Amino acid sequence: MVLGLGTGSTAAFVVDKLGQLLSTGQLSNIVGIPTSKRTQEQAASLNIPLSTLDLHPHIDLAIDGADEVDPNLDLVKGRGGALLREKMVEAASSSFIVVADDSKLVSGLGGSGLAMPVEVVQFCWKYNLVRLEGLFKELGCEAKLRLSGDGREKPYVTDNGNYIVDLYFKNPIKDGFAAGKEISAMEGVVEHGLFLGMATSVIIAGKTGVEVMTK
Amino acid sequence: MVLGLGTGSTAAFVVDKLGQLLSTGQLSNIVGIPTSKRTQEQAASLNIPLSTLDLHPHIDLAIDGADEVDPNLDLVKGRGGALLREKMVEAASSSFIVVADDSKLVSGLGGSGLAMPVEVVQFCWKYNLVRLEGLFKELGCEAKLRLSGDGREKPYVTDNGNYIVDLYFKNPIKDGFAAGKEISAMEGVVEHGLFLGMATSVIIAGKTGVEVMTK
Repeated sequence: MVLGLGTGSTAAFVVDKLGQLLSTGQLSNIVGIPTSKRTQEQAASLNIPLSTLDLHPHIDLAIDGADEVDPNLDLVKGRGGALLREKMVEAASSSFIVVADDSKLVSGLGGSGLAMPVEVVQFCWKYNLVRLEGLFKELGCEAKLRLSGDGREKPYVTDNGNYIVDLYFKNPIKDGFAAGKEISAMEGVVEHGLFLGMATSVIIAGKTGVEVMTK
Repeated sequence: MVLGLGTGSTAAFVVDKLGQLLSTGQLSNIVGIPTSKRTQEQAASLNIPLSTLDLHPHIDLAIDGADEVDPNLDLVKGRGGALLREKMVEAASSSFIVVADDSKLVSGLGGSGLAMPVEVVQFCWKYNLVRLEGLFKELGCEAKLRLSGDGREKPYVTDNGNYIVDLYFKNPIKDGFAAGKEISAMEGVVEHGLFLGMATSVIIAGKTGVEVMTK
């Protein structure tokens, strides 16, 4: 089985468990396709056999976390910075299962008030930041360049050498598909954190137990 | 006047002439926005005042060459490798004038049989090369990674740190806008060389003189 390995705090638990099941022989014949350098390192340290989309363009199942989940199973992802590779791998997967806790549930995407990331080329990132903010002016959108370093003094750089512009919405996005198309159409935008029509099911952990959402 | 400066053999003549006109005082009050590191270096060496899209998001006029020009003034550009920055700058220009010789005229885009470039992230470029070729299978499309170096032994890397997949068509593209949308929708595609609905006019040099095409 070819398995897409997500990135982030939730996905790290999945990768850990997978390594454990493989080491005890409870699972076998697994090839993992990591969605970030970080996950690649974690999986390699657990002796999980790894490959790439180049060699395995069809993935059976991907498991990953999400930052927001709406009632249609549309997602915001990428606060961990791996949105492009996650989207490439998860779009190539026959099934895509999301694991999240109930704090990630929103009535509309962007509704958490936390970051919706857009990966942009470094060239004239400020120009694109202003354009992205302008695109969602009516939703009270604020755009910020993601920073990193101890004192948050330098731009965060993705695995692909790009920057991330984080969008913060006062009001949720009404039509995710239309928004995604408008963002993608901007020259210099590499990918955005709206994962639309991709999740097959979402496993939600809450105080009263585990719920599985399917379409 | 804020002026977008193109990239390539034709655009280099424009930049040269601009430097000359500025140095003799025949032109003044010009700020140039270069579309590549190469053009930036050329313009700087000619003492042309330069700025960026970040500081000048609205450009009055851009002048550039093109690889193909169809009857609707839609273009293929980017054989010089600067397609992304060219598109960002030229999309931000009130007027965009293309200068080309009549060997660039085609009845349909892709019709020259020469490269139509697509800029892709380095991550899993092979996966995207196969997908791009598959997208235009019916047009007899062949996709090749652009190489560089003396012996063409290593991938060509754009100013933005990405690779270029060149598409060669046996038959021209029928609907450029549909094709552009399908290419852009692929995860990992950064930009493509179809410049649609962007040129204000095209100046064509032929054996019998100069012709100006406008819409």
